[in-house]
Amino acid sequence: MNWKVKIKVLLKESILDPQGQAVEGGLDSLGYKNVSDVNIGKYMELEIEDVVTKDKVKTQVDEMCQRLLANPVIEDYTFEVEEMEG
Amino acid sequence: MNWKVKIKVLLKESILDPQGQAVEGGLDSLGYKNVSDVNIGKYMELEIEDVVTKDKVKTQVDEMCQRLLANPVIEDYTFEVEEMEG
Repeated sequence: MNWKVKIKVLLKESILDPQGQAVEGGLDSLGYKNVSDVNIGKYMELEIEDVVTKDKVKTQVDEMCQRLLANPVIEDYTFEVEEMEG
Repeated sequence: MNWKVKIKVLLKESILDPQGQAVEGGLDSLGYKNVSDVNIGKYMELEIEDVVTKDKVKTQVDEMCQRLLANPVIEDYTFEVEEMEG
């Protein structure tokens, strides 16, 4: 079975997000005064082939996030796994 | 009413994604040989205050994506809008 994986990575709440602040300032200067708490992170989509169960895919994705796709010291990640047709 | 907005930005399919290819190579070298079609983009969360209807929030977010948060020439964006309690 093949799977579609969607991963979101954001800085932990306790970590300063200068990029988010910069975007918030940019939006403000464009006239959007009602925007707050802007957090910027990474979004990844990928496909995983030939894995039999959803749980096994989740285990693999968790491992890949811990080892490469996110920095567990300063970032939190969440992900969704969907079975692909065909 | 206040709203939580979640925005995903990815390169258009037709655009080469060297970052995605680099990550795919990194995963491969870590032993994950069953991963393909890696696409890397931006994930943003923000809050929008004092807007009465969901449609008005969507219009504002669309505008902000077109003007600042995404590059419509090379990127596609999608977003979700949720009403916040309180």
